Amino acid sequence: MSDPDQRSSAATNTSPALIKQSLRLWLKMLKTTKHVEATIREKLRIEFDTTLPRFDVMAALYRFEEGLKMSELSSALRVSNGNVTGIIERLVADGAVLRVPVAGDKRAMLVRLTHKGREEFSRMAAAHELWINAIFGCLTPDATARLISILDTIEHSQGLVTGEENDA
Amino acid sequence: MSDPDQRSSAATNTSPALIKQSLRLWLKMLKTTKHVEATIREKLRIEFDTTLPRFDVMAALYRFEEGLKMSELSSALRVSNGNVTGIIERLVADGAVLRVPVAGDKRAMLVRLTHKGREEFSRMAAAHELWINAIFGCLTPDATARLISILDTIEHSQGLVTGEENDA
Repeated sequence: MSDPDQRSSAATNTSPALIKQSLRLWLKMLKTTKHVEATIREKLRIEFDTTLPRFDVMAALYRFEEGLKMSELSSALRVSNGNVTGIIERLVADGAVLRVPVAGDKRAMLVRLTHKGREEFSRMAAAHELWINAIFGCLTPDATARLISILDTIEHSQGLVTGEENDA
Repeated sequence: MSDPDQRSSAATNTSPALIKQSLRLWLKMLKTTKHVEATIREKLRIEFDTTLPRFDVMAALYRFEEGLKMSELSSALRVSNGNVTGIIERLVADGAVLRVPVAGDKRAMLVRLTHKGREEFSRMAAAHELWINAIFGCLTPDATARLISILDTIEHSQGLVTGEENDA
């Protein structure tokens, strides 16, 4: 649940100055996020010759070692959608993903990472962690924790919490 | 300049737990940003039958009342790019944007909002401010200020500061 000291009644936040401050916060958050995302896209391209949508698909499959139905994969993708079907076709062609039948359901197929796919993703994920740390490591642990707590407050107030809070 | 208490030497932030914490922060920030952006897209569509890229183009032109060259417009767009040329064509067809010659340069044209375009954008911007306030108004002014300050620290450390910090 959200930290009470980060909540306030709607009435206190409707002055024009505070509305402008909310807008300033949002534009800054959007700018920072877009820049970090662009940095990650660029590094994935240069260091692994890959794309963010492909990375996101592999991240989702990595979390579900048994595999996912295509519909489950689409809903597990928290970040970018891209063309999931096209990405899976490429991953299959590259030997990183296998299609496997579902026991007891002749028509359903699961997609899951092969051993090669898991190894490929592990290498990218390790590099990704270091890139993220290079960016957010400028914050003290306390500032990081405060930022997480403030984002939690926003998530809860927006009903964005899904219960599925695993990290990639 | 960044708040010294939010900075730390790289050496303190390389423990696996802190790297995971940075990753958690980034995934949370990305998720919150994507959800807010999706909310704004949806509201623009429902309430104004318009798109986020069109809103962003109009926001940039609104800030530069004298008009912009197409190249200036593209670099002024901080948020989404979309197909800027296509968006301008539509805005011209809708009477919201005018193309005007540049004094002393026969080949150059500026694009600028018409009176109708400025009024249309004003209405959308006022609604946009209220949507943002409905989301971020759950934070106390102090939490908002802290979040802005932490984002500033990240911006400075990333060299994201451009000097052009006007709000839309």
